[in-house]
Amino acid sequence: MAPGRLDEAGGAALQTVRDEVITKKQPSVATHMTGDHDLVLKTYRILIADLCQQFGMGHPGAHTSLLRGAIGMAAIGVALWKYVMRYAPHSPEWFNRDRFVLSNGHTCLFQYSFLHLSGYKAMTFDQLKSYHSEHADSLCPGHPEIEIEGIELTTGPLGQGVANSVGLAMATKNLQATYNKPGFDVVSNHTWCMVGDACLQEGVGLEAISLAGHWQLNNLTIIYDNNQITCDGSVDMVNREDINAKMRACGYDVLEVEDGCYDVDSIVQALEQARRSKDKPTFINIKTTIGVGSKVAGKAAAHGAPFGADEIKNMKKANGFDPEQHFVIGQKVRDFFAELPRRGEGFVGEWKGLVEEYCKKYPELGEEFQVRMRGEMTRNWKDLIPQSFSTSDTPSRVSSGLVLNPIAKEINSLMVGTADLSPSVNMIWDGKVDFQNPDVKTSCGINGSYAGRYIHYGVREHAMCAIANGLAAYNPGTFLPVTSTFFIFYLYAAPAVRMGALQHLPVLHVATHDSIGAGEDGPTHQPVELAALFRAMPHLLYIRPGDGEEVAGAYAAALSHRSGPSIVSVSRHKIPQLHGGGPGKGLTSRDGVARGAYVLQEPADGGSADVTIIGVGAELSSAVELARELKESRNIRARVVSFPCWRLFEMQPVSYRREVLRRHGPGGIPAVVIEPYAPNGWERYADAGICLRQFGHSLPGKYIYRHFGFEVQPMAEKISGYLNGIKSGDFLKGEFVDL
Amino acid sequence: MAPGRLDEAGGAALQTVRDEVITKKQPSVATHMTGDHDLVLKTYRILIADLCQQFGMGHPGAHTSLLRGAIGMAAIGVALWKYVMRYAPHSPEWFNRDRFVLSNGHTCLFQYSFLHLSGYKAMTFDQLKSYHSEHADSLCPGHPEIEIEGIELTTGPLGQGVANSVGLAMATKNLQATYNKPGFDVVSNHTWCMVGDACLQEGVGLEAISLAGHWQLNNLTIIYDNNQITCDGSVDMVNREDINAKMRACGYDVLEVEDGCYDVDSIVQALEQARRSKDKPTFINIKTTIGVGSKVAGKAAAHGAPFGADEIKNMKKANGFDPEQHFVIGQKVRDFFAELPRRGEGFVGEWKGLVEEYCKKYPELGEEFQVRMRGEMTRNWKDLIPQSFSTSDTPSRVSSGLVLNPIAKEINSLMVGTADLSPSVNMIWDGKVDFQNPDVKTSCGINGSYAGRYIHYGVREHAMCAIANGLAAYNPGTFLPVTSTFFIFYLYAAPAVRMGALQHLPVLHVATHDSIGAGEDGPTHQPVELAALFRAMPHLLYIRPGDGEEVAGAYAAALSHRSGPSIVSVSRHKIPQLHGGGPGKGLTSRDGVARGAYVLQEPADGGSADVTIIGVGAELSSAVELARELKESRNIRARVVSFPCWRLFEMQPVSYRREVLRRHGPGGIPAVVIEPYAPNGWERYADAGICLRQFGHSLPGKYIYRHFGFEVQPMAEKISGYLNGIKSGDFLKGEFVDL
Repeated sequence: MAPGRLDEAGGAALQTVRDEVITKKQPSVATHMTGDHDLVLKTYRILIADLCQQFGMGHPGAHTSLLRGAIGMAAIGVALWKYVMRYAPHSPEWFNRDRFVLSNGHTCLFQYSFLHLSGYKAMTFDQLKSYHSEHADSLCPGHPEIEIEGIELTTGPLGQGVANSVGLAMATKNLQATYNKPGFDVVSNHTWCMVGDACLQEGVGLEAISLAGHWQLNNLTIIYDNNQITCDGSVDMVNREDINAKMRACGYDVLEVEDGCYDVDSIVQALEQARRSKDKPTFINIKTTIGVGSKVAGKAAAHGAPFGADEIKNMKKANGFDPEQHFVIGQKVRDFFAELPRRGEGFVGEWKGLVEEYCKKYPELGEEFQVRMRGEMTRNWKDLIPQSFSTSDTPSRVSSGLVLNPIAKEINSLMVGTADLSPSVNMIWDGKVDFQNPDVKTSCGINGSYAGRYIHYGVREHAMCAIANGLAAYNPGTFLPVTSTFFIFYLYAAPAVRMGALQHLPVLHVATHDSIGAGEDGPTHQPVELAALFRAMPHLLYIRPGDGEEVAGAYAAALSHRSGPSIVSVSRHKIPQLHGGGPGKGLTSRDGVARGAYVLQEPADGGSADVTIIGVGAELSSAVELARELKESRNIRARVVSFPCWRLFEMQPVSYRREVLRRHGPGGIPAVVIEPYAPNGWERYADAGICLRQFGHSLPGKYIYRHFGFEVQPMAEKISGYLNGIKSGDFLKGEFVDL
Repeated sequence: MAPGRLDEAGGAALQTVRDEVITKKQPSVATHMTGDHDLVLKTYRILIADLCQQFGMGHPGAHTSLLRGAIGMAAIGVALWKYVMRYAPHSPEWFNRDRFVLSNGHTCLFQYSFLHLSGYKAMTFDQLKSYHSEHADSLCPGHPEIEIEGIELTTGPLGQGVANSVGLAMATKNLQATYNKPGFDVVSNHTWCMVGDACLQEGVGLEAISLAGHWQLNNLTIIYDNNQITCDGSVDMVNREDINAKMRACGYDVLEVEDGCYDVDSIVQALEQARRSKDKPTFINIKTTIGVGSKVAGKAAAHGAPFGADEIKNMKKANGFDPEQHFVIGQKVRDFFAELPRRGEGFVGEWKGLVEEYCKKYPELGEEFQVRMRGEMTRNWKDLIPQSFSTSDTPSRVSSGLVLNPIAKEINSLMVGTADLSPSVNMIWDGKVDFQNPDVKTSCGINGSYAGRYIHYGVREHAMCAIANGLAAYNPGTFLPVTSTFFIFYLYAAPAVRMGALQHLPVLHVATHDSIGAGEDGPTHQPVELAALFRAMPHLLYIRPGDGEEVAGAYAAALSHRSGPSIVSVSRHKIPQLHGGGPGKGLTSRDGVARGAYVLQEPADGGSADVTIIGVGAELSSAVELARELKESRNIRARVVSFPCWRLFEMQPVSYRREVLRRHGPGGIPAVVIEPYAPNGWERYADAGICLRQFGHSLPGKYIYRHFGFEVQPMAEKISGYLNGIKSGDFLKGEFVDL
């Protein structure tokens, strides 16, 4: 890299621009500014322009990514990384670091540049310049990704970063209430969430904002890059609300900074005031100018395309830089940030000393705190899973509670919540304490504390799941977030479930009222096509257990799955307990669940079978009944396969998979799946399906199964007809048939 | 039905409860009350209790649906149906009727009961009593459904009803600005949206609230049934914001009614004030008590389970009713509502006269208005679809604009919007006018009017699609709403897309940046698993066209699809135009798109083929190239099938389907699909897939295709290996193989 002109003559450009400072709640005061800000800001802005221009022109007409917001945010970055945030570039995983989340993730160069400037080792200058390059191993993808040193969470789908931040701040609160002791604030970090206009428009952001206000998360600050420009034009084309009044109504302290482009001083002051907040989260409304310093400053055009080479030259000239040089970070600018790694190690050392003292004074708690920091659980969850279940018919949502609640009670990594369906999802354990501000006295008399681990999310499914991602991302394994609602409402939350999957975050989603058994609530509540989404979603286990034994297996599989989320999908209505076999019963197996699918039963007399029936989840017992009926009334010999999870099955060796399905090659027999969901994807495992290719209907549970032909008699008739159709040649081998 | 005790002695119970009235902006005034309210309210509440109890006990422990809110809303219902709303029970489809949306749809008995009482013919007393029964043809499903006389929209998934209502109010505004003339308010209806606490927590509700404030929809009133109770307990467990202040910040007039259980007078007054609002939507905060009049009044327990027979007896005794009689609507109560059908016909007659005069005075406009009311388009869209396209490589999102924009320009049923991606989605036609309050002057200088038909939704995808449903539901065919954003963000909107599908609403969703071609934006923006969801969603066409010709076909199919929504899924990046054939090119066909899939080319020399390659959308041209490469370098003879839409293909006769795929039976050859999406469901049509079973990556478009092996050479190698594997027996016939 060639040094820039300012390396030699930079001193001349040094001056601090001091515009009118407005931080409404506190007058401007002299602070610890160094006077180098002007140069730093100019250097940063020109650097961003160069980085955007580099490969951007290779894609004329393309959406190159909405970067220039990054230019307007320069002074905010200086305030955060140089002055306010407590972090350690050379110990990026330091447990007690402040968390920073770039919810407006399209301005990722903002974060990448400050990671580089502040001394994160992985973010070399070459890496920074790999932005939008052809290098698959670039650490500068188009949106920030969790795998990168110094990035807390993957962001980009707007609004979710706000909810992630709420989760991070809750994690801090919970740990503080659980472990901190007078004089020993072993957990004290703050969460800073950067948002643009869009995060304040997206529903998930608004849900999370409301919750953070309710919980009075004073350790959360939302920093609003208020540039009043979006892709389409000015924000007042789509939003003219009084955002400050709205945030106050939601329980926030609101601060304003008038000149967010240059006034580092006021920004620092506002941020520090936010950190000191006693009982409210803080919203800092910082007025900035998009693309400041360029000819498109303040225009929508600055949002989505490179400036063009000429304009960058003009920018450089106007700012006293050499127009022919690119990617220039002068020594003075380097020096400005140089101390940060050492400062960071100082924070870390101080904290380590504190923790050491803490562990001496509180040995038991200290040991537990260490276990949590290592991401381990305080007890082995396997010991807590019931070995057996009552033999009477039980809704699998009840079995779900029987399995999960003892674990949630005993292991304090679990943060369990629901979107206002506590009476339905059975997630409340004996003695649970709500996560609440301890000073709040609710009118129903159910209070809580920040040490509480049961979370009432309200009717905010999307925020619930995005907050769960934040809890999981606080530190690997320190929390195991659990969410729960009806399966259908995971469609509201799907973008967050997806982000959890993308980030390999182990979050446990408990989806009750699956299948069509939601019954009376009708087609709006019957998730006939949702399994298709979650079965297709990478890294995620979608598991439909068929009885208590399989519920135990489902949780064992989910809790063992450390590289992504799981959905345990259970029934509203009572289903038979198949474990233990006996007349007309199969033999469900938790170990079978771990393999995704397994042979539940072969024909009773040990002979060869005519057909395999695949049973799943709430309808597994119907498959068993159907096999008996086929034998008794039609002398058709059926084997039954239980198939709770596709992804786990796909992980098995091909020999196992062939043995379970026995469809292909010599002696192969057809397989018919029974599931009142869209059949999409079952074609991989079955030759025919008794499935549901339409929306559901409002009918009580038993009647709806009848309505759609999922009772034993009509199903037996269909299968009999299907087998005849194969013989007659109406159905061609290998062609999937909807029965 | 036996008449109730009050049929004989009801007069004694007649008294009007007159509690303290608080309607903050206006003092209480004497109105047109009849004095029968007390009896009506009591009768209604006991009726609801009976209806809930009837079948509820059949499902002990079950979530019987959250009905008892309905009891608290009695007085609101009387105010609306008896006094304020302009509608016609015997002309339920009257064009200019007020629209009522029950966003808190679980209180559906509220609406069903008032439909019955006010004289809707379909809602007989027997029908009302079929609630939660085993009758599949009940008009009282667990949530209100659009198919039922008097119900505007299917609601239930919370928050969406608010957005639907915004769409309805926009429809009115747009028609008014387009057709009304001085003295001829041929469109003048108001939209009333009932919400509970949850609709004010759900993100989609908050997004829609913000938009209605921005657009100053003074013809929209949100009525808040403020009972402060949710399933989990009191609302203050999850929400303590100042809702009135929040709504004011969002641009609403806020009214309060203190005693919403009894004070019909004040409710009427507030509703009428709301209807008179000049320039803001109105939020009426009505304090009610859930389960009022029962022993669980005001408790969460009143929310989700029946009262129990004893408590209902107590309720009846305490209110002077015979505890042994059920489903009692006395004659006085019948009389109270008896005038409504006649009054309604009066409204209709008056309006018809007005329209008649209008058509005389403004014959041309009148004719167009009639066309719109009949749900027809003012021009034949088929004439506007281009016959041909440039032969140069073109992003299909650009082709999309070439097809749709002339239609949007010429046919004023189309209301086209985007969630802040105007520069990317290419939906702006020459001369488009924004839908905006005409008095608003935006800082970017792009203004509009209510007659405008281009909608800037801001970054609010979920509200966008739910609002589109409202526009479509205003009157069948009067509007054709079009939404657009990146395909990935339809996951944010999926719950609303689903509700459109469930309701058979023809809404057109234009999803750009599909496949992995979103490129640099990375895995957060690459919708690898979304097609699985939308292909599984009933009633919806998910169409991926492969070039301009197929884009034309996609829109033709979508615009012909009147029984549900469509997603036209197009590329960010340039793709070859295959139409017209020629060396190395196929022959795409718009008529082929209409059949879902079709043979694009057979082997060039006319001989039999070894393999079928299925190409889709942005990757269709790769399939064509691949066929050439296989022949040239490996002498493998491949035919190519273009497969833009599963659902359209499924509608074809089996003979056509077999002919296109040619997989089964004698002479069958294997088919390999190429699509960088999760393969789920392709197993129905293919034997192997070159698909993507993982999340994407941040790389510029051409590099990402290389990264994941979607270039011709590695694909040719995979197919060659696959065909060898079949010969060697490594792959069993019929077993789907991921290549």
